[in-house]
Amino acid sequence: MSLELLTLSNPVFKSFTFWAGVLVVKMLGMSLLTAIQRFKTKTFANPEDLMSPKLKVKFDDPNVERVRRAHRNDLENILPFFAIGLLYTLTNPSAFLAINLFRAVGISRIVHTLVYAVVVVPQPARALSFFVALIATAYMAFQVIAAAAF
Amino acid sequence: MSLELLTLSNPVFKSFTFWAGVLVVKMLGMSLLTAIQRFKTKTFANPEDLMSPKLKVKFDDPNVERVRRAHRNDLENILPFFAIGLLYTLTNPSAFLAINLFRAVGISRIVHTLVYAVVVVPQPARALSFFVALIATAYMAFQVIAAAAF
Amino acid sequence: MSLELLTLSNPVFKSFTFWAGVLVVKMLGMSLLTAIQRFKTKTFANPEDLMSPKLKVKFDDPNVERVRRAHRNDLENILPFFAIGLLYTLTNPSAFLAINLFRAVGISRIVHTLVYAVVVVPQPARALSFFVALIATAYMAFQVIAAAAF
Repeated sequence: MSLELLTLSNPVFKSFTFWAGVLVVKMLGMSLLTAIQRFKTKTFANPEDLMSPKLKVKFDDPNVERVRRAHRNDLENILPFFAIGLLYTLTNPSAFLAINLFRAVGISRIVHTLVYAVVVVPQPARALSFFVALIATAYMAFQVIAAAAF
Repeated sequence: MSLELLTLSNPVFKSFTFWAGVLVVKMLGMSLLTAIQRFKTKTFANPEDLMSPKLKVKFDDPNVERVRRAHRNDLENILPFFAIGLLYTLTNPSAFLAINLFRAVGISRIVHTLVYAVVVVPQPARALSFFVALIATAYMAFQVIAAAAF
Repeated sequence: MSLELLTLSNPVFKSFTFWAGVLVVKMLGMSLLTAIQRFKTKTFANPEDLMSPKLKVKFDDPNVERVRRAHRNDLENILPFFAIGLLYTLTNPSAFLAINLFRAVGISRIVHTLVYAVVVVPQPARALSFFVALIATAYMAFQVIAAAAF
């Protein structure tokens, strides 16, 4: 029974795997986005990173810090989703619901990055994308708790 | 053999699933706790978040920073537990030991949040709750390494 | 078929489990490294942590901040690897390739910590170790996406 749950022939696992892969690529991209901003603004946090003896370490460039805040928000929200999405898959949920929850998390976290760190869009764009993913992840967590508690 | 390890009929997996769900909910709650402190103290990190033209971005409110430090400590400790707890479950450990290790991590991380970010309790309350979870997680990691190395 | 993928008789899973265990221990060690630097430099972030009434909270010690940057870099890179490494294992990849990818991530992340937070080594030591792990993780993520998308 459970053995098939973690194979790509299970559409729920297939969808989770797809979105987890996409979100890992997105998160790794944040490091490159940070590096681009660091070179553009010549903002380096370590003495050994300074490209010229005239530069000094700097921690307060608003463009660098914005990308870093978006990246940290990913750590806080996407990484717990990886754990709970897998456990939710193992509770054998309705495929329709599960696939749409994974889509909601995946798409809203991509939108969150775009409106936070790529092109700044006025609120409530970021708040909305943040809450869609948060609510979907919390719903899965409560389903997982309910399945394990009884 | 291994197929039953990731089903809720395995009491070790059932316990891991329960505590992972509880800790994901707890971690998502840290975002709400941060938001509450931000609104209470009118401390916003992005220009687009300012509710009034009189406000300026602010990064040094001690109440906001305290919740953020507690949240970051969760990232550093709870997220590795999610990975190692699942792998430890797959090594088919003694149910009694494994369930109590998961309980120790779950309860001590909840206590850590309470004494750090909700009601500040003098040390060594935070240090103790921190080390209980750290030692339990490290023990599981060493068991996982030993199982995989030989 | 899939049931054997998550057993230690699968050399790919065995290797993933080993390196995940090693990297969890390494990450937990960052907390101890931070604590050592905090006590050495008497840099504490919370009033309740101050060991003497003469001390004040301090956030800008370069030795403490260096370890914290290395630790955050672990959160950004090692934690996504835990998720994608498991999913990659479930795609049943070539054992030779997969085992060497896991080794590359494990070894390069240990080197990253050594040259960043233990003995500072001039660039490009840190950049190289960073990119080896990033490229290996991104490769696995693209393989996972390809397996799930078609």
